This record gives sequence, structure tokens and C-alpha cells, in this order.
Amino acid sequence: MPFQINAELHYQVLQRSTVLLNIHALSTPNQTLSEEQFSITPGVSWEEFPLETGANRYIRLDTGDAAQLDITYSVMADTKVTMVSHEELHDVSVAQIRRSALPYLFPSRYCQSDRLGRFATKEFGYIPHPYDQAVAICDWIFNNIDYLSGSTDTGTSAFDTLTQRSGVCRDFAHLGIALCRALSIPARYFTGYACFMQPPDFHACFEACIGNRWFIFDPTRLAALNGLVRIATGRDAADSAVATIFGSMQMTGMSVSCVSNDFTPLGAADLAGHAILIEP
Amino acid sequence: MPFQINAELHYQVLQRSTVLLNIHALSTPNQTLSEEQFSITPGVSWEEFPLETGANRYIRLDTGDAAQLDITYSVMADTKVTMVSHEELHDVSVAQIRRSALPYLFPSRYCQSDRLGRFATKEFGYIPHPYDQAVAICDWIFNNIDYLSGSTDTGTSAFDTLTQRSGVCRDFAHLGIALCRALSIPARYFTGYACFMQPPDFHACFEACIGNRWFIFDPTRLAALNGLVRIATGRDAADSAVATIFGSMQMTGMSVSCVSNDFTPLGAADLAGHAILIEP
Amino acid sequence: MPFQINAELHYQVLQRSTVLLNIHALSTPNQTLSEEQFSITPGVSWEEFPLETGANRYIRLDTGDAAQLDITYSVMADTKVTMVSHEELHDVSVAQIRRSALPYLFPSRYCQSDRLGRFATKEFGYIPHPYDQAVAICDWIFNNIDYLSGSTDTGTSAFDTLTQRSGVCRDFAHLGIALCRALSIPARYFTGYACFMQPPDFHACFEACIGNRWFIFDPTRLAALNGLVRIATGRDAADSAVATIFGSMQMTGMSVSCVSNDFTPLGAADLAGHAILIEP
Amino acid sequence: MPFQINAELHYQVLQRSTVLLNIHALSTPNQTLSEEQFSITPGVSWEEFPLETGANRYIRLDTGDAAQLDITYSVMADTKVTMVSHEELHDVSVAQIRRSALPYLFPSRYCQSDRLGRFATKEFGYIPHPYDQAVAICDWIFNNIDYLSGSTDTGTSAFDTLTQRSGVCRDFAHLGIALCRALSIPARYFTGYACFMQPPDFHACFEACIGNRWFIFDPTRLAALNGLVRIATGRDAADSAVATIFGSMQMTGMSVSCVSNDFTPLGAADLAGHAILIEP
Repeated sequence: MPFQINAELHYQVLQRSTVLLNIHALSTPNQTLSEEQFSITPGVSWEEFPLETGANRYIRLDTGDAAQLDITYSVMADTKVTMVSHEELHDVSVAQIRRSALPYLFPSRYCQSDRLGRFATKEFGYIPHPYDQAVAICDWIFNNIDYLSGSTDTGTSAFDTLTQRSGVCRDFAHLGIALCRALSIPARYFTGYACFMQPPDFHACFEACIGNRWFIFDPTRLAALNGLVRIATGRDAADSAVATIFGSMQMTGMSVSCVSNDFTPLGAADLAGHAILIEP
Repeated sequence: MPFQINAELHYQVLQRSTVLLNIHALSTPNQTLSEEQFSITPGVSWEEFPLETGANRYIRLDTGDAAQLDITYSVMADTKVTMVSHEELHDVSVAQIRRSALPYLFPSRYCQSDRLGRFATKEFGYIPHPYDQAVAICDWIFNNIDYLSGSTDTGTSAFDTLTQRSGVCRDFAHLGIALCRALSIPARYFTGYACFMQPPDFHACFEACIGNRWFIFDPTRLAALNGLVRIATGRDAADSAVATIFGSMQMTGMSVSCVSNDFTPLGAADLAGHAILIEP
Repeated sequence: MPFQINAELHYQVLQRSTVLLNIHALSTPNQTLSEEQFSITPGVSWEEFPLETGANRYIRLDTGDAAQLDITYSVMADTKVTMVSHEELHDVSVAQIRRSALPYLFPSRYCQSDRLGRFATKEFGYIPHPYDQAVAICDWIFNNIDYLSGSTDTGTSAFDTLTQRSGVCRDFAHLGIALCRALSIPARYFTGYACFMQPPDFHACFEACIGNRWFIFDPTRLAALNGLVRIATGRDAADSAVATIFGSMQMTGMSVSCVSNDFTPLGAADLAGHAILIEP
Repeated sequence: MPFQINAELHYQVLQRSTVLLNIHALSTPNQTLSEEQFSITPGVSWEEFPLETGANRYIRLDTGDAAQLDITYSVMADTKVTMVSHEELHDVSVAQIRRSALPYLFPSRYCQSDRLGRFATKEFGYIPHPYDQAVAICDWIFNNIDYLSGSTDTGTSAFDTLTQRSGVCRDFAHLGIALCRALSIPARYFTGYACFMQPPDFHACFEACIGNRWFIFDPTRLAALNGLVRIATGRDAADSAVATIFGSMQMTGMSVSCVSNDFTPLGAADLAGHAILIEP
């Protein structure tokens, strides 16, 4: 399914700054890019590279003397999702989890799974299959956490959200990840574009590793699981922030759009009995 | 300098468990291993591999039906440290920091550098050179935090330690790392063996990336900087715990020793005007 | 019902200390005392007085030069409880709550009700009557928090307990209080003796003000509600600690007993449809 | 010194609410009131009374059916301060502290003195006299915490402020109180009007009990100590909030003024060697 993505970020530069950006779509076997364009205020130097904290395409830029920073990005991303029926989902013990997934069992800045073990076990431990645990976690988050813009900030972690019971997509994802890890299910942060999401914005959700495959989950229920375009994965938002600023800048404007001509969102009926793989 | 290392870990297995161990010394250009021996309760299966969270040699083992787990490790490690005079230390801006060091600028589970920016800037921001900032951070920690066994636990983070003012080597390292990152100095957790340290135990300190080289710092002042043998580096203890247990086991005994026939610890006089590199 | 109470506290005095004790039973219209005896290491000066933080009989003592502090207390306390049928329980809005109960709506050290509003409303807000809310809170705590000695310390608060899901009677009481207050039900900490409780110890539970009367609740279910002898009430354990020490002392021994010749604990069947008042 | 005070609060009432207000000046031997006027949207019922949580004049009002709530208050307050020379300041041990001050040694919602003991002792423990400790605490706060509107919220406590290093008058007061208590100096929250303070607003600072008298301290240095008019004292802002709302209202406007015809603020030179008492 091809998605047309456009993103713009505008900043006033208060002092010379270095910025790490995560806005480029990834190129993967299941996500093909075309017509990619990235432009930036003239005179600002930049480079692109991946970091080993997950899958990503970091842009590092140096504002130099620019007083204003204008970034535009557009791409056509063609993605493929795979539906896997529940019967094909296996349970794999920690002893058999693939090595590359093990770091996603460890607690991280915003996902203090080490402190949520008792809660996770009480609430979800009785469920026999890890896939059903992840689904129950997402249902629990959707039913117990209010989606409320402005109720949290960049310091908010899963530990806070569990008690305060409100947040945005980032917080929902962090809580989902922390609870999965607390049950020994590897889980990682997913940031990307979401087709026709309202209001349009960068989106965050998560992937859980079940039977050694990474399935996608969105506890906000704001995005169609077949309408996601991956920007990056990481342990949590610390690895995958849209923009990490070293210096001083103020955002003056932002717009994001992700549209498609012939997109049919997968609904509950389509999903019944199926899990969704974005990776091949 | 050759160091003879012996470590033993003994556990009672309360239920079948999978364990990730970080007790093997690393083999690096400046750290040569010989006579390495690793033995484990017969019948317990294990494998060794690195994880991409840093430099490490993870052991994953599955206790199977064993009721008790006995692990012994010994190795002869020959290390070389490099003393770099202060005049040769360069300051490199975030725009020029080598890519592999960038993840060590991000906050992590135990090092919430995002919440310590104001403190770090007030206390150390006036110091012009990042190396002197890192030294000042270590001095500050040594002078302001009590080394007190049992005053913290595995949930304690740099944010807590800064207020509670007590901890062990792990907490000292986490606070040093968090404060460096808050000043845009990449910093990573170092876990290893320390020659003649009293009492003998696994040790933790940290490395800071200054002028794109990783220098070693120990805010506890318990270990000689030329007597360290590296087990692993990572973002913090979440990546590099001696043992991460999935299941249920109880430690029944532990011993660690790291000795040398002809070791002369570097003292303050030797170090005056020099920073210490363990990596080449 | 007459209860025979004996308590002993033994300390080694490491440096001259002042101690505030809360171990004396209160004398109230429904709690009559006789044969009260309080003895303390000879030469230690002390005085008794109430503080306005609740109902209490504080002892302030100064160890002077004593190297050891031995405290024994015994009393016969005759109490009366009142069972009130559910039909007689009224709901009173904040506008009508009696003035003396209003401070028990405010957050306190261990009961951060201001941060639990969303959780409390989601979990218990749908229940129409405040008495049923308080019962549901106690049931929830009993079912979701593990009673686990040693899992918490004197710094643990309701906010922590809600996430970590373990604690002792003090933590159970703090969480009950915080959740009641978050629903605009005044709630206060109750500390006392509990007849035949196993293991014998000082006990903590809480009272909630419903229809302008203070009903007793014990989310631990460890004590019979008609077997409680009140020592103190306060906003939380900060007001009503058994011993608050200024100086340095180490406990070397403690014993508590509360027995009765003809005590029949009220059981679930007796309580069906009734709330319990200890105050007249 | 007579001060003319005017305060206005305007709210939109989103649902019927009960409000506890703390905006009335106290009448005390050293603070005489005249020409007091309090008016409120017609039809809104209210009552005035003190609570035992400190000194205060609470207003409880019930919005009833009002869609808007307009509150105006004005008073002429004549206050007297007493300057006490340092030689007259005594040090009184906990054993001799007057009973009414003891509750102000306990930790409270926003002043977790129990967790700051090690920090307070390290930073201020070497100072022999408690008055000088309180002065050093205020200097430390002024020099180390940024006064920054909007950097904190009503959930922020002294524990947070100590690490995050920014706040407003309320946070400065909470930290001052917590550090005093951690050194066994009773300390209480003071809320009031401050003559010619810029920008005009309700103000918060604190009183510390030294030699059994309550001296005033303002770590923000924003208010002249002889220009304060007391509204309330309490353990912290939980006791003394300007407005505590049960229901749902949104503030639409507020103004505060406190002026005087012939006010000469006490400056550093006047204060040299003197402490300020507001209570008789």
C-alpha cells in the first residue's frame, strides 16, 4: 500500500545548535521508498547515518549561523503487512528468544519494567500465551489510561503513567513496552507515520517479540495497523525522539500528513484471530 | 600488567530459570586473555555471544532441572593503559562527536540525564573543558555521596542518589554518567574486576568520551585505574548486570578475586596532569 | 470488650536522643482504660501530651546519659464498637462535611491523593455511595497488593505501593487513605493494638468519614474490627509513628501482645450489611 | 505599617463545586485588620472558620447553580515586625522544643524531610546555630534554584525541586521547610500578601522555630520581610492552598495588590545581625 508522506518542522534558533532528527522513513524489505526529498535551510550542514540503538536513519545537523531552521521531508512509502493467524503464534521461552531481541527485555529510561513485575504478573500473569498477554495489556491501557494531550511531558515514564492514568501515544507505548518486558516479552518502541490519523502527527506505538517475530500493537487504537510507516525502532523514546536538540531552539511550526488514495484500514473484524507483522 | 581473576557464583534454583551472565573478561587490543576457564553445574546448557548494547560477552544459560547452580570463572588478563597528558585532550562539539558515541548521550534507565540538566549546568557548566568537567563531577560525587553498602537497591537511579546522597559503586557510576550526559558528554557504564580492591567484588565505574576517546573515571576512588579488567560496557547497569535472572533463584555464595604479582597502583601523583585510556 | 495489652521496646542508645512515642492507648467515650502502667529506664525524663495533628498521647523522652532504653507499657482497655446498618449510612457532600474532617481531604506525606484522582475515579468513581466506594477500595487493595514483610521501608508512600503492589499494614492503610481522599472522602490513619493478630505487632488501618461519622476499615483483613484498641489517629504515619527518634538509637527488641479472655471476632457474616464505628 | 490589600478571583464553573479559599488576612496581635470586605457572586453560600492544621481563616463556598464565580476581597492590614538581634537567638534541643511546634518537624506532602537528611547534614550540618543553618539554607536555595514561572506544577515537591533546580515561591518555601526539618528545626509554610512584590501575586515563604520563636525567611528574596501580611500557616501548601476545588472550575482571571503609602522595605543593611519575627 503506497502512502504519501509530508512533514515540516520549523524552528527559531536561539543559539547555534546540533540536532538529531528521526523523521526519515526506513527502507526495509516490507517498506519500499520512492521520491524521497529532504530539504533544509540553506547553509545548514547535515549527514545521515544509522545508530546501533535500533533501526533508524538519524540526521545530524549543525545550525551554524542560521537564525531559523526549516525542514521539509516527503516520501512515498509502499508497505506490506502480514497477517498471522493465532494458531501460528508460538511461545518461546527466554532461553530460546533470539539474541537480538534480548536487549528489549531490559528496563530503559521510560520503561521501568523492573518495578512493574508484581503489577504485570497480577494483572496479566494468568494469561497463558504471550500474544494474548500483549493484547490484554493493550486493552487494559486503552481502558484505563485517558488519552489527553498536554497531560504529560518528555520526562513522563511508564511508572508515572501507570499511576496518573493519562498520557499521549508516547506514554501509551512506553507503558505497553514496560508491561511486556515485565512479563519477559521483549518489546520495542515504534515511531512512524500513520495514515489518516486524526489529528495528523508523528505516531508512537510498539512491537512485541512473540515466537521470535515482532508483532505490532497500538494501545491508543488511533492508527490502523496496516497504515503505519516506520521511522525508527528503539528501546523507548530516548532512542527515537523526532528531534533531540543540543543547544537552544524553539519550535515555531510543524505539520505532518500521511495519506493514501486507496487505503482501507484493517478493522476489528479483519483482525479477529490475527496478529500483524510489519517486518518480514 | 597481568591480573589473575577468579570468580564464583552459587545459587539455589527455586524454579527453572534462564540467566544472562556478564562475568567474562573482554578480549580487546589492550586486554589480552589467557588460561580462561568457565565451568558450570553439569547438565546446564549455555552459550556465549555479544549483544549490541555495548561491548560484552553474554552467557545465556538454562538451569534445566538443576536444583543448584555453581559457576566458576578464571582468567589471566593482561591489560595496558595509556596516559594522555591534558594538553592532548581535545574538546569536540556534539556536531563532531563520533557516531558510535551518540547513543551514550541519551538518558537511560538509571541515568536520567534529561532531568539533571539544570543541576549539572549550575554546578559544572562554568568549567570550560569537558575533561575538567568530568573530573569535577567525580570529585563532587566522592565528596557529596556516602559510600554505604545496603543503602540502595537495584531500583535506585541517579535521580534518587543525587537527593539521598548515599550508594555503592553502581550508584556512583550512574550519577557520574547522568551528569556527564547532562553536559553533552557521552558517558557509558563500565563493569569489571579491580585489582586488590577491598572488599573484593565486581566493580562499576564509567567512561566518558572526550575528544572522541573514551577515558576512564572512578568516582568511588576504590580502584586503581590501571588495575581494571573490563567485563562489559553499556548504557548503564540495565545492560551490564552481572546476572539477570528470568525465573527464581537465590544467591547462596559469591567470591571474586583479582590479584597480580607486581602491581603498582597509579596514585594521584602519577595521574597529575594525565587522563587514562583503557581502550586503544 | 476488655483487652489486656502489653508492649515492650528496647533500644541501644548510640548517642543522646529525644524520642516521640505513640504507644499509649487513648481514653475515649468508647475506650476505657484501667491498670495502665508505663515504665522506662530509670533516669530517663519524659512527659505526656497530645498534639493537634489528630488524637494521640505523645510521650517525649530524653535519653540523657542512658546507654540503653527499655520501655514497657501495659493497660487494660475496654472498648465498644457500634454496628451501623447500611440503610443508616448517609452521603454528605464536601459542602456539608463537618469542618474537623476537612483536613483529612488534603494530601499528606504518604498519601498523595492529588496524584491518584484519575485512577480512583476510573476504578471506583462509578460506585454511587461513598461507603461502598471505601469497601471497594479495601477489597481492591486486599486483592491487588501483596502483604509482604520487608518489601517496603519508612519512605514508601501510597504512590509507590500502587505501582509496586506490595507492602505491610502501614502501606495498605496509606493506599486506602489516599484513594478515599482522591474521591473526596475524608480518611485518616489509625494506629493501635489488634487482639490476637498474628504475628503480634502494632497495627495500622484507617477510618473514613462517611455521613460525618468515622468508620473503620482494614484492607489487610488481618485484624478483627471489634478487636482494635486505638493508640492514635493522624493524617498518616508521619503523625503517628510508634517511635520518632531524634538522635541515634538501634532497636534491640520489641514485643507486643493484645489478648482477651472472651473475644469473638466479628466475621464476614456478622458484618454483612453493617459498617463499624469505633468512635461514639 | 498599614497595607491596602485587594484580591480578585474569577472562575467559570464547569460543574457545581465546593471551594475552600485561603485569601483572608489573619487577625493576630501583630496584625490588625480594618475595612475588610468580602464579596462573592450573589446566591453563592459560604461560611468562614479556622481549621486545626495551622492558623487560617478558611472560606467554604458552594457554587450552587452559579455559572460563574467572582470573588473580591479587600482589607487594610496593619502589621508590626520585631527585629531580634543574633545574640538573643537561642538554640533549643528537640527535647525542649515547645509542643505546638513538634508537628512541624514531621515530613509532609511537599516537604519530604525524611529523605533529605543526608543532604541537609552534609551541606548545613557543620553550622553550629540553627538560625545560621536556616539562613544558609535560604542562601543555598537562592543561589542554586532558578525562579522560573511555569517550571513546576501543583504536584511538585521539595524532593523534585532539589534535583530539578527550578521552581516558584511555593517550591522555594517547600524546599526551605524540608531542609530545616531534616536538621530538626521545626518549619512551617507561610502564605500571604507581599507589599509591592513584582509581579503582584499571592506569596509563599516559611517560618522556622528557633529558640521557640517563629522567625520568617524568604528564600526567593522577592518580598521585603516587613511587607508581609499573613493569610495562613500550615505544614505546606496542602494545608494552605489559595483555592482547593472539589468539582470543576476554570480560572478566568485573578488580580492581587498589596500597597502602602509610606513603606520602606527592610534591606540587607537593616537586617544585618537581626532576625525577623512576625508573630509576637
